[in-house]
Amino acid sequence: MSALRVEILNTGSELLLGSVRDAHLSWFGKELFPLGFRIFRQTTVPDGTAIRDALLEAFGRTDVLIVTGGLGPTTDDITRELVAELLGRRLQNHPETLARIQEFCRKRGFAFQPRMERQAMAPEGAKVLPNEYGTAPGLYLPATAGTSRSTPHIFLLPGPPREMQPMARVHVLPTLKELTEQLPGTVRNECRIYRIVGMGESMVESMLGLELSKRGDLEVGYCARPNEVDFRLIAPKELLDEVEPLVLAAVGDHLISEGEESMEDVVVNLLKKSGATLATAESCTGGLLANRITNVPGASAVFLEGFVTYSNDSKSALLGVPSEMISTHGAVSEAVVKAMAEGALRQSGATHALATTGIAGPDGGSAEKPVGTVWMALAAKGHETEVWMESIPTDRLTFKQRVSQSALDRLRKRLKRSAP
Amino acid sequence: MSALRVEILNTGSELLLGSVRDAHLSWFGKELFPLGFRIFRQTTVPDGTAIRDALLEAFGRTDVLIVTGGLGPTTDDITRELVAELLGRRLQNHPETLARIQEFCRKRGFAFQPRMERQAMAPEGAKVLPNEYGTAPGLYLPATAGTSRSTPHIFLLPGPPREMQPMARVHVLPTLKELTEQLPGTVRNECRIYRIVGMGESMVESMLGLELSKRGDLEVGYCARPNEVDFRLIAPKELLDEVEPLVLAAVGDHLISEGEESMEDVVVNLLKKSGATLATAESCTGGLLANRITNVPGASAVFLEGFVTYSNDSKSALLGVPSEMISTHGAVSEAVVKAMAEGALRQSGATHALATTGIAGPDGGSAEKPVGTVWMALAAKGHETEVWMESIPTDRLTFKQRVSQSALDRLRKRLKRSAP
Repeated sequence: MSALRVEILNTGSELLLGSVRDAHLSWFGKELFPLGFRIFRQTTVPDGTAIRDALLEAFGRTDVLIVTGGLGPTTDDITRELVAELLGRRLQNHPETLARIQEFCRKRGFAFQPRMERQAMAPEGAKVLPNEYGTAPGLYLPATAGTSRSTPHIFLLPGPPREMQPMARVHVLPTLKELTEQLPGTVRNECRIYRIVGMGESMVESMLGLELSKRGDLEVGYCARPNEVDFRLIAPKELLDEVEPLVLAAVGDHLISEGEESMEDVVVNLLKKSGATLATAESCTGGLLANRITNVPGASAVFLEGFVTYSNDSKSALLGVPSEMISTHGAVSEAVVKAMAEGALRQSGATHALATTGIAGPDGGSAEKPVGTVWMALAAKGHETEVWMESIPTDRLTFKQRVSQSALDRLRKRLKRSAP
Repeated sequence: MSALRVEILNTGSELLLGSVRDAHLSWFGKELFPLGFRIFRQTTVPDGTAIRDALLEAFGRTDVLIVTGGLGPTTDDITRELVAELLGRRLQNHPETLARIQEFCRKRGFAFQPRMERQAMAPEGAKVLPNEYGTAPGLYLPATAGTSRSTPHIFLLPGPPREMQPMARVHVLPTLKELTEQLPGTVRNECRIYRIVGMGESMVESMLGLELSKRGDLEVGYCARPNEVDFRLIAPKELLDEVEPLVLAAVGDHLISEGEESMEDVVVNLLKKSGATLATAESCTGGLLANRITNVPGASAVFLEGFVTYSNDSKSALLGVPSEMISTHGAVSEAVVKAMAEGALRQSGATHALATTGIAGPDGGSAEKPVGTVWMALAAKGHETEVWMESIPTDRLTFKQRVSQSALDRLRKRLKRSAP
């Protein structure tokens, strides 16, 4: 790995009050690793002068310091000013940035506030990193050495992840890559992630991880999500290539993707490749299935329509589920989910349709059908409809996520089997 | 607030590699505030000896130190041993804990591993905190003063949130409550959060925040989300009550809620109170609107059905939008969104219907209708349909989030005006 040490400093009282959960550490952890960096410390401090102490401590400890938050227009945003002061640099106007902020406000229909002028100030010697998604630009202050106090490479980035991440991708990661390429003797490890569905973390470990972690030269890691495990291997490329066939053989059909592609990305791509189209009929997932599919750019080429049939009446009126069937079997039943999927197929003219009906909770369960009971179905033109049941007793949001994952996975497997 | 300073130290390489996202800080932040504590710093370090430096730094800085992780049975779990060493305490067997671990394994059907015996060791003078959900017990080491080195109150807790949280609820929070009650002159602050829609962060500041932050006794903070600002005030209850009328007058109709209620919570509650029901007709939001609504427990009482009419054909077939209208005006148009909302109202029999159609991007824009163009409509029985346009050029996911927020807000305002 690189000899450069990276540290992250998150600022913002909302993080320490618990009203916002930090997303920066995990994002940077994932992004920096493939570039050869390990983060060796992360600190959170509230807005205000506590930032000063934390900055000074980090200056003496790290080669690269990434600071998030405190660049906004409000009075509690003082990171820019503190860093300028500690580095003994004057803040200067940056007219290009001011113009950009004014243009940003104009486009979005916000009134430009005089207070935003502060955001167009930059310490002498700083490189301004434009913000495509907000008013606060980022700042890069290259390391100084040999002066009375040497300072690390400092990046000041806005707090909101939707502004920070695109900025970091375009401006921070490439700069860090350059920095580490200048260093001699860096060991180039790679990180390969296998996204796995339908196997628990400990099953992945006993099938694969224990054996592979006996090799001292291979770092093995796991990350569990709702019905998904990221299995992580870190080693030089040659070694990863050598063990990959073992991994693929053990994981088989449970592999969603290698790397960044999510379940919904994979499904949309498979639909495109197969010339297939999709409709959804959702009760308990309440639109999440359609929402995940339409999060993928270009989904409109394959996704025709979705029905969120929450009430019993809507299941009959929109999908043609007979109301006697609902009163006989209940809305959460094999018969109803099958009729929902087939109704969506018929109504939409799509080649494939997914349906879900279940009890998300916290209320609505019974002894016979407890909270967590869910029926799913996959209908496809010219095929028997697949129908299956699962029991997922958990909180409402995790339930919806796991059900949507299971439904998408069934479709993924079907499309893979029939892929041209 | 309490004179006791609280600091959190998270240990675990997985946090710094980004494979796990920390949940402890936000949990403790929310739990400790009502007890009168503020967390003034949080640090993450990898497994291993880096924990030693972080512990020593914290000893000199805080009154209460909460350490998570590193209590497991494997070789990289060394928190217990490091703390004992730094405090000059011997590790002693704790037979009750050993029996409990063996019993835990028996019940869950795990084999007891000899190396789990380490987990039944406790430093002299420590109180053992039983773990109901795992093998690693927690440890509480009360503060020492007047010796060669004074140390804070130290809690060592397991890393997995499902083990840590129940333990902290039963053993840590009550102990902290007792500690702060022994202190004289603790000021009892409260935290009040006003969720605001339709005003940017800097507009909230110029209308309210600047004036209020002139008062030295009132802590003012902001947190920006897609089309939402959390405006935060911290002060004793009397002062918050005194300034609340100012806040409410300035924010007016832009106030979503005070405290924890999200936009969708508020909308579902208003629908219930008004005896109203909802249907949705979504194109560009692709199911997100329905998904947000159905994330609220009990939504089934008011949400009848949702249409995700992604294709032009489905807009005609399901919502009765004339296909000539689509070819004349385009799918993203005033006429079409109005027809969508009115079609959903008619089809569903709901009292209210929301519709969205727009260009989420990254593709599909034109000079006339660039990416980010969106039309929305709110239809209600016996009322003129409201139709409006916005321009939200941003990334696909933020676009969907902002559009859904705008649509829900229009419904919220409508229901509030007509609320009984």
